[in-house]
Amino acid sequence: MKDPLQRVVPHLRKVQPYVPGIQPEGSGWIKLNTNELPYPPSPKVAPAIEEELGRLALYPNPTSQPLRQAIAKRYNLNGDQVIIGNGSDDLLNLLMRSFGGEQQAVLQTVPSYSLYPVLAAISDGKVESVEFDASMQLPLDKLSGCKANILFLTSPNAPTGVAFPLEQLRTLAKGFDGILVIDEAYADFAVENALPLLGECSNVIITRTFSKSYGLAGLRVGFAMADAAIIRILDSIRDSYNVNRISQAGALAAFEDASYYEEIIQRIIKTRQRASEILQQRGWKCYPSQTNFIFAAPPRGLMAAEGFEHLKHNRILVRHFPSHPLTADYLRISIGTDEQMNSLLEVLQSWENQE
Amino acid sequence: MKDPLQRVVPHLRKVQPYVPGIQPEGSGWIKLNTNELPYPPSPKVAPAIEEELGRLALYPNPTSQPLRQAIAKRYNLNGDQVIIGNGSDDLLNLLMRSFGGEQQAVLQTVPSYSLYPVLAAISDGKVESVEFDASMQLPLDKLSGCKANILFLTSPNAPTGVAFPLEQLRTLAKGFDGILVIDEAYADFAVENALPLLGECSNVIITRTFSKSYGLAGLRVGFAMADAAIIRILDSIRDSYNVNRISQAGALAAFEDASYYEEIIQRIIKTRQRASEILQQRGWKCYPSQTNFIFAAPPRGLMAAEGFEHLKHNRILVRHFPSHPLTADYLRISIGTDEQMNSLLEVLQSWENQE
Repeated sequence: MKDPLQRVVPHLRKVQPYVPGIQPEGSGWIKLNTNELPYPPSPKVAPAIEEELGRLALYPNPTSQPLRQAIAKRYNLNGDQVIIGNGSDDLLNLLMRSFGGEQQAVLQTVPSYSLYPVLAAISDGKVESVEFDASMQLPLDKLSGCKANILFLTSPNAPTGVAFPLEQLRTLAKGFDGILVIDEAYADFAVENALPLLGECSNVIITRTFSKSYGLAGLRVGFAMADAAIIRILDSIRDSYNVNRISQAGALAAFEDASYYEEIIQRIIKTRQRASEILQQRGWKCYPSQTNFIFAAPPRGLMAAEGFEHLKHNRILVRHFPSHPLTADYLRISIGTDEQMNSLLEVLQSWENQE
Repeated sequence: MKDPLQRVVPHLRKVQPYVPGIQPEGSGWIKLNTNELPYPPSPKVAPAIEEELGRLALYPNPTSQPLRQAIAKRYNLNGDQVIIGNGSDDLLNLLMRSFGGEQQAVLQTVPSYSLYPVLAAISDGKVESVEFDASMQLPLDKLSGCKANILFLTSPNAPTGVAFPLEQLRTLAKGFDGILVIDEAYADFAVENALPLLGECSNVIITRTFSKSYGLAGLRVGFAMADAAIIRILDSIRDSYNVNRISQAGALAAFEDASYYEEIIQRIIKTRQRASEILQQRGWKCYPSQTNFIFAAPPRGLMAAEGFEHLKHNRILVRHFPSHPLTADYLRISIGTDEQMNSLLEVLQSWENQE
């Protein structure tokens, strides 16, 4: 047979896969590189999972119905306005297939979640990018002039951590003639979110994840909320058992333990503020973060790439995005425990002093 | 905004989703409709899952590496010849996207797993179908004359349960100029399988699942084995964390407990033979099954659809595929425990006698 690559549909032959943050082997690492929660999930998660262990031979609920219902109830939506995914990436993939495939115009902002252009490439979408300026505020004027079938916007944004005011998102949603995906992976750490737009704008879809604020990155569960017509489309092309039994049960138990997470989130915000202030006092530039990470540039004369390596040498992992001028000078540092952040700040200080 | 359906890429507007077997609410059902294992998975699965409960906040291994390695070792393959999926459906979907998208010719046999044409529709593939005759043997002559970029073959076949001899599969693989997917969801219940072809034919990819013979339908894990060049393509377009932490750990523990499953599988085969013999003695027609289900037609004068309803009325679920003449007269009955099969046989007998 000829090389199987020659049989691959043409547009897939040169896809560059998404590169996730490193999951290090061995212990002793301080992992501040993939925005995981440094605290365990709700203590109600483990018993909920253990209760499923006697039913592993049975297929899961194909629609993740109990979780859909719980989410709909909390946010005053109908059950048919919610869909559950194998991580929110599953849902972003379905959105791209539905609205960004076949040479449709896909709009994104840059810098942002680097998965969007990968998904567009896999679906054969035509990506157009609107660049932020160094303020990292929403480029509303530029976006309003753009035509596209679908626009992916991370809000608060990653890797900058900067949040966009609801009023600006409303203006964008009402002025944009296409599907607007607001990827709220970090919204639980922010002051406001786009939920009020769901009743107002039928083109808005909000995606969320259990990987960040719920401390369940290991379970792969995400959800999306939108007009029922959009949810129906995603349901028609998703895998019929896309979320396994354990993940459904664990995510539901977490979701229902709201008070546990309120406290955890406040703790993260407090640690974030403290770390930002210390870094800024030492001459770092930090964007105002409304997420569980800080995007920070070292003081003049110090190179982000070297800070990254110095941290790694000391078994602390953060993230560096060297390929874009707006991100190359910065490190993205996930918010860990106070103890972990103290270690980070110490190791960084030894680097600052030695240079 | 206009109706979101108008924004969906054209070929997706009329997709008819796959319809999975019913997962009934409430207890008291005998579930013989989705080919789940009636026995619990290996007792090593639960402890392996419990050990992961302290690490739920961390993303899983993105490549499911330990499970890949274990599978490669057992089947004498290299690690780069194996990929793990969120169920084998995940991998079938990736195969369809890679080789069956963009109007590529997709070949299937009918009747077979009804997901293939749904996946083809989602990827905009052009499905061509080769029909079995009533013998349900591999239509080797018809298939050899077909050109397609990819061929999906369930072996042993579903819903018939009929296995195809390795020699015929070898002839097919060598004569077919395209990718040959051999979907071995039920191979663990069969006398032989297509593994020997992996070293001989670079166009063959074998998919397997933990949902049937491993009793882990609730976890959603499948795998595929092929030439490294094919695996690389699938890896380049899959979700970067497609299998969660718990499912990886549970599947690995099950996979390594081979002796447990050898005994379970022998038990299923014994029950299958007994049930088939009893049904045939009572005038049912049964295809020779090498799976964990029986495809059986009631004696002359009795309608399969009525048998289905009679069973359901008695809280026994089986599967009926009324839409094709080769399947409409049959019921697909998953092999349960001996006790469950006794209940089924009794309820069927009351139906047979009353008509």
